[in-house]
Amino acid sequence: MIKIIAKILVKDDAIEQFQKEAEELIERSRAEEGNVSYTLNQNVKDPSEHVFMEIWKDDDAIQKHNSSEHFTSIFPKLSALAKEDPVVDLYKEI
Amino acid sequence: MIKIIAKILVKDDAIEQFQKEAEELIERSRAEEGNVSYTLNQNVKDPSEHVFMEIWKDDDAIQKHNSSEHFTSIFPKLSALAKEDPVVDLYKEI
Repeated sequence: MIKIIAKILVKDDAIEQFQKEAEELIERSRAEEGNVSYTLNQNVKDPSEHVFMEIWKDDDAIQKHNSSEHFTSIFPKLSALAKEDPVVDLYKEI
Repeated sequence: MIKIIAKILVKDDAIEQFQKEAEELIERSRAEEGNVSYTLNQNVKDPSEHVFMEIWKDDDAIQKHNSSEHFTSIFPKLSALAKEDPVVDLYKEI
């Protein structure tokens, strides 16, 4: 399994819109065969900081997700609401 | 529920020792009544970067964890193997 932590600093006046537009991405990503878990989370101390915490079965599942219609159409809309480029890191559990 | 992401950049020559010393912390944290999930993860591109991904029932569970014998005795040992101070953030799922 591979985990993804994708951190996005959302513009202060776009937080509600960001969370709303993320709903479809969350729903359709969870429906992918290779997805184990997919959540959007908000930093308790900094409401602008949003983090997608994702678990995927393998590299192939991530490749399919990255080329999916929902990811390629929705993620750019989310990124456009960010203060700076999203930071995406991949992890393996020890 | 509250999630914790604790990022630690481990000294390059101490990665094996860090992972070994973390084992007891992981086991005893998972055994806490207020813990939902507790994993240690390693960045795929940067093997020095380790992230504890934790889920706790509530603030009270985190308070108890932070004052537990295993946390107060083991976490300082892990921090001593880091290149810089750990970065700890708390999140709530949207």
